[in-house]
This record gives sequence, C-alpha cells and structure tokens, in this order.
Amino acid sequence: MTKIPHRLYLTEDQMPRRWYNLRADMKEQPDPLIHPGTHEPLPAESLYPIFCEKLARQETDCTTRYFDIPEPVLDMYKLYRPSPLCRAYNLEKALGTPAKIYYKFEGNNTSGSHKLNSAIAQAYYAKEQGLKGLTTETGAGQWGTALSEACAYFGLDLKVFMVKVSYEQKPYRKAVMQTFGADVTPSPSDTTEAGRAILAHDPTTGGSLGCAISEAVEMAVTHEGYRYVLGSVLNQVLLHQSIIGLESRQAMELLDEYPDIVIGCAGGGSNLGGLIAPFMQDKLLGRTDPRIIAVEPASCPSLTRGRYAYDFCDTGHVTPLARMYTLGNGFMPAPNHAGGLRYHGMSPILSKLYHDGYMEAVAVKQTDVFEAAVQFAKVETILPAPESAHAIRSAIDEALRCKQTGEAKTILFGLTGTGYFDMAAYEAYHNGRMRNHVPTDAELAEGFASLPAMA
Amino acid sequence: MTKIPHRLYLTEDQMPRRWYNLRADMKEQPDPLIHPGTHEPLPAESLYPIFCEKLARQETDCTTRYFDIPEPVLDMYKLYRPSPLCRAYNLEKALGTPAKIYYKFEGNNTSGSHKLNSAIAQAYYAKEQGLKGLTTETGAGQWGTALSEACAYFGLDLKVFMVKVSYEQKPYRKAVMQTFGADVTPSPSDTTEAGRAILAHDPTTGGSLGCAISEAVEMAVTHEGYRYVLGSVLNQVLLHQSIIGLESRQAMELLDEYPDIVIGCAGGGSNLGGLIAPFMQDKLLGRTDPRIIAVEPASCPSLTRGRYAYDFCDTGHVTPLARMYTLGNGFMPAPNHAGGLRYHGMSPILSKLYHDGYMEAVAVKQTDVFEAAVQFAKVETILPAPESAHAIRSAIDEALRCKQTGEAKTILFGLTGTGYFDMAAYEAYHNGRMRNHVPTDAELAEGFASLPAMA
Repeated sequence: MTKIPHRLYLTEDQMPRRWYNLRADMKEQPDPLIHPGTHEPLPAESLYPIFCEKLARQETDCTTRYFDIPEPVLDMYKLYRPSPLCRAYNLEKALGTPAKIYYKFEGNNTSGSHKLNSAIAQAYYAKEQGLKGLTTETGAGQWGTALSEACAYFGLDLKVFMVKVSYEQKPYRKAVMQTFGADVTPSPSDTTEAGRAILAHDPTTGGSLGCAISEAVEMAVTHEGYRYVLGSVLNQVLLHQSIIGLESRQAMELLDEYPDIVIGCAGGGSNLGGLIAPFMQDKLLGRTDPRIIAVEPASCPSLTRGRYAYDFCDTGHVTPLARMYTLGNGFMPAPNHAGGLRYHGMSPILSKLYHDGYMEAVAVKQTDVFEAAVQFAKVETILPAPESAHAIRSAIDEALRCKQTGEAKTILFGLTGTGYFDMAAYEAYHNGRMRNHVPTDAELAEGFASLPAMA
Repeated sequence: MTKIPHRLYLTEDQMPRRWYNLRADMKEQPDPLIHPGTHEPLPAESLYPIFCEKLARQETDCTTRYFDIPEPVLDMYKLYRPSPLCRAYNLEKALGTPAKIYYKFEGNNTSGSHKLNSAIAQAYYAKEQGLKGLTTETGAGQWGTALSEACAYFGLDLKVFMVKVSYEQKPYRKAVMQTFGADVTPSPSDTTEAGRAILAHDPTTGGSLGCAISEAVEMAVTHEGYRYVLGSVLNQVLLHQSIIGLESRQAMELLDEYPDIVIGCAGGGSNLGGLIAPFMQDKLLGRTDPRIIAVEPASCPSLTRGRYAYDFCDTGHVTPLARMYTLGNGFMPAPNHAGGLRYHGMSPILSKLYHDGYMEAVAVKQTDVFEAAVQFAKVETILPAPESAHAIRSAIDEALRCKQTGEAKTILFGLTGTGYFDMAAYEAYHNGRMRNHVPTDAELAEGFASLPAMA
C-alpha cells in the first residue's frame, strides 16, 4: 500500500479549474426563489439590484454543470490553495478506532476559514462589473475577514455588518477587517431602517445573521454602485465552495481512497455544500453511495427540528423567499459561540437533498463539541473553530462506532477553520461556564409563527 | 523557464531528516558559556540541572555537523511541515520591482510561528529522559503556545511565565496555552525569588523576556523532575530551527533559484539563525556569497547599537554568561508590540558571525514596520506578526533599491508567523496611537552599566 502522508497538498497545476454546480445533477430541483408579495418565481434579472449580474445568473442556473473559474480568481486562490487533505493518524490512535479519518483543512489562510473561496469569486465579479463596493454581514467574523481580504485585493470598498454579540466577543476580528480596509458596524445598528426597527422591538438584542443580512441588503440597494454579497445559504456560494470537495475527491483518488462517510458542519450550508458536492454527484448518478452527514448545533437545529417551508432569508423581510429547512425568520438563536452556525435557515439545495433523503443530519450540544475540539487539538495540533468542531464531534462519534463494530470505514470531514478568535468560548468551556441551550418546543413554535403565510 | 508556483510545498518524503549545526563550519567558534562566578567555561554536564542532557550536549557541541532528527519529532513535524516557500508575485508587482521576492512562511500551524520547530524537539528530549515537566518564558506568546502544543502531544506538564505586558495585551494567547493544558503566570510574579526581587525594585514593570527567563529557570531548578527550555538565543534552538533554512534551500534548488539576499527578523535569533543556516554554510565554505541581513527594532537594537560582551541571558542573573551583542541585562525595552523582539541580547552564534563580518544588521522603526505589514497583507493576503513584519520592511526596502538600480536580485525573507494575536498593535497603528521609541545614548549607557565586570 502507498504510504499516506499526514498532509497531502495538490500542486498548483492540479488545482481544479471549474466549479461544480450540484443542481445540474439533481433529479428534482430545489424550489425557486419567489417574490415575497406575488409569490412568483424570480428570474435572474430581478436580482440585479441586489447581486452582481453574473452572480445572479449563477444563483438561478440549474443546468450548467461546470463553471470555469476566472483566471484572476484562480490567481488569488493560488495564494492559499490547494488546501491540505490531512490524515488524522493521531486522532485515530487516540480513539483506538479501525476507521481511517481524513479531514480537509480550510483554515490555512488569514480569514481562518473556507469563506475566502466564495469571497474572492464574489469580489471579482463585482470588480468586473465596474462596481464601487460591496456590503455584507458577518457572524463569527470569518466571512467578513475573507471578504475584506478579497476586496483589498481587487480594490473595492466594503461595508460589513457584524452580529453584535460576535462584535463584542471578538474585538480583534474587527481590527483584522479594518487592516484590510473594511468599515465594520455592529448589527443591529441605527444606520438602516431594518436595524432601527429591530432595535425598537428589542433594544438589548445581541443580533443575528438574519438581522445583519437585512441591514446589509438595505445598504446595498440604497447606495449607488454597491451590491450585496452573502457568505452562505446561496446557490452561488455552494457553487464556489465546490472547490473544497473537488480538491478532496482528487486528493483521495491520488491516495486510492474514497469516503464511506462525509461529514460537515452546517450553519447556512456553505462548507457542507462545497465539501460534499462531488461526492453527492457520485451518489446522485448512482456511482457510489457514501453516507453524508450534516452536523448542526442543538441550539439552532434547522434541519433536525425545523420545517421545510418558504421563508425569508433575513429577519427584516427585505430578501426574497426561499424554500428551505427553517426555524422561522423570527427565531432568535441563543448566543452560543459558534457564531457561524446561528442562522435560522439552511441552503435550499441542501434542504432539498435532505428532504429527499440524500443526506442525514445530527444536532450536537455545545459542551460535547468543545470536548471534541480540545481532544482534537491536543493530538492533531490544530486549534479548531467551534463551527468546525461540530464536524469533529460527529467524526469522533462515527469513528467510535467503528471501534464497536470493528469496521474500518473511511471518514472524511471538513475542518473549516481555526479558533484563534474564539478563545472567549474556549475559556468559558475550560471554566465550566458554558451552557447548553436547547430550544423548547414552545420556543420553536414562536419561531414557526414568523413563517410567511403561503397561499 | 519553469513556471514558479505561488507556494511550493516539499512532500513529506522530501523533508530534511537532519538538523544542521552551523558551528561545525565556523572558522572561529563563538565563545563558550561561562560560570558567572568563576568565569570558567561550562561543560555540558554542568548544564544538566537546567537542561535535558541531550539538549545540554547539543548546546555545547561545536563539531557535529548534522544531528539526526528523532522519528517522534519527525512525526510531529509532519503535522505542519514542510512549510511553504512562497513567491511574492503580488508584492513584486505592487512595488514595481525587478527583484524576485520569496518568503518562507512558518505561520501555518496553531502556534502561529516557527517556534514549534524547536518546541517539539525540546519536549521530545525531556520525555525521552523521563522528566515530569518543563518551565519556560514567553513574550508574544508564540513560544509558549508552541511549547504547550508539544507538551500536550508528548504528555508533559508545562509552566509558562508570560511577559506581563504581553499577558495583558493578549488575553487570548493565555487561553490557547490553557487549551493545550499549560499553566500560565504573568511575569514578574510573586511565585519566585527572582520575580519578587524585580517587583520590589519596580512594582509597575511590564516585565521583559529577561525577567521571565529568571523566573522559569528558578522554577525548574527548584522543582524535582522539571527542566527549563528556551525558545531562542541558545545554540540548540538554532540547531532545531535549521530545518527552516534547509527546506528553503532545497525548495529553491527545485526551482533553480538561489538567494542574493537573505533577510530575517532578529530578537534572540531563533528564526534568523534557522533560516540562514545552510546559506551561511555556503558562505563559510566559500561556495556562494549571499548578503545576510538581520532586522531588529530600533527600540531594542542589540546588534546595531549593543556591545559584544559577556552578559547574563536573564535579568535575575540565574543563567550562565554568554558572549553576545547585548544592551545589558538591565536594559528594559520600551513596550513596543513586537514582544518576540524585546530581548536585550542576541544568539552567541549570530553575534559571532556578525562580529566577524558575515552578516549585516539594520534597525527599523515600528510605524515603518506596520506600514510594510499592511502593504504586504493587502496583496499577499497573509496578516503578518509584527516580528515578521520587520523582515518584510527590509525586504521591501531592498526590492525598492533594486527598482532604482534595475537589478533583478533574488530576495528570500523569513515570514515567521501570523499576527492574529497582535491586533491591539494593529489598532494602535491604524488609530495613529503608535509611537516610535528609540533609546537615547543615556538610556543605552544605563543598560551597559548592568554588564557584569570581567577580569
């Protein structure tokens, strides 16, 4: 057998040159975005006031299987990609499992996460269209950092609305974004109608991704030369993130490996959708049949306890409606520390695949997640982001199951990023001050009450 | 010409399996460590109460050219090495220089710096000798983090004394070390004689690496089963860090390249000594003649304004005397933000090479350093540590000189680490609150007055 290295880097030449559009191989398509008033499906053109034109077309394109990655995007990818495929020899040994555990590590860049993959694409298309700048929201700050880097690189202005609870927990995230030239505002803020309305309703709210999205969209549509960009949920984002899965599959092929189980954390779905894309293709085309597992926080369980329904993507009701697993746009997640997973909805593509039985979902508790994070860090030496640690938790659980059954399964999980800016959460865990919030049925019902009425 | 990739990773198989001991090729040796009372040279055995035995022997070995890297050390290296050799295409373009700029990036690991290279070696030898634990000091926190990772991996206890000003500026550094199981105490502290003496003299001091070393050494020699380890200055550390230079030279050979200029930041000399090792070997053996430049902060200018003299390595006078460029062990550097460069002395090996004319040194001001850091980050997308940014400043200056002269020189610099934990310093720079402290001659004279009297 070939000796499998601890970390495998594809060469620059081996880097994928096309993104893969999962929708092209889905037997049934996700339901289209619809207008909140008329409930009519939205054509690409109707999205042009919000998104760059090329991105709007990617958003609505269900048939083009592959999109060429533009050269300037590839050039910036080459500053941190291909990312390593890692064999977790030490974790396997520590668990005493016969399973082979692989992880694709996306944290080796200054944003500290996979978010840069889509940020670069979105900034590039904005520049190509001759825009002045972009607006966005950020939760944990990884998306905002990534977009700051991309905007600095392509010479675009950037306004970031950062979920207030994260803004306060992570003061230095803001400083990183500012180093790359971005404006950062805590959300909800009094700079937008949407923000003022949310504050009027609850002046002490810590905010949410949903609120921040409302503010960023409003800012974009009311400012000449600006468009809005989003780091997750959208079809275009999953398209760009497919590079994670494409590299993973290619690297595993070089090692003569293929995963039995693919695991990713799921907030809005950007990492999960990207990681699983080519493996899901294999599954949709009947070539292979890996198990695919989405891992979400028990505090924000959109797949495992949400409804598959049309809902707003934001709290302020400025976006179109998307059909997805959702807790209701009015659901306010508890301030847990995996800021990137505090979102009421889920990518429509992933929601449809889950609905149709192509993937599984599990919800895990925060203290169990941090236990896995610390165990992983000590043997694999990478300090994971809390978001990523959800996938670690599930990978460990699956590997321990293999230990019981004696099966030598091959597990691949996505290690989306690093936890350098999440040390307040780690401290809370170490000090025993971390709580596990699991919403009651009554709390969920309150969220579902915010779902828009459909004919 | 071969197309040179943005990042070149050697494969696991190409990883160097031996460290290189620069002293073996020096025509004149650095002066030996001597006993502070008798002024007699210290044999390896006399260091056993402080250092592990194998490390003490490495410390005093001037003739063994190569040391095999133990297999368990190689195994842990494989979790983050080989590190990438990067071609700074974007920086070259931004500067409009004909120079080719390369950098060896050591920040792709959780410690965020090159420090892990020696931490692993030192922890391994301690474990091999059957010790219970280690003590150390840390400035910026990178060494402490690295050693925490290594001790967690090998199952050793660790007590870290962290320079108080850094402890306060970087609360989350502490949390990272604690995640890996280390005890962290701000220095000076009341837990040691040395700390209490320093506090009695100046209760409000922000501390220094020199103070913290005194405390850590005292703690090691007064606790059964503990030894002291240091992340810089020592000959053994330069030996372990030679892996940086060995990988760099090997990667450049694959690209058919060789540096005309090699640049590294210099605090105690760990990165610089490691990066330049094989190039200095070429120079010592007359095979090539690259310029080698040490870059230090103007606030702590040991090479450019210090004396070449025997001095204590610490402030509390618990260490042997080393002959080196020093500002005097009583010199208290201004609280600038490159914590890793706030040390009164300099590696005896590098001091000797500098004294004998084999390398140059420049001192740079902090605001100029951060200007270079931000310029670099925006085009190369890596947020550099302030320490590393000293080398960036000098590399940019050399590249701009090439622009003036039209020379297409090949520049290699060491990008020792990332700046995620230095955002308070970046904020101070952005807000215009950063000051440049350059010690007056009177301040230097005060430091020199602390040099021990020699017969």
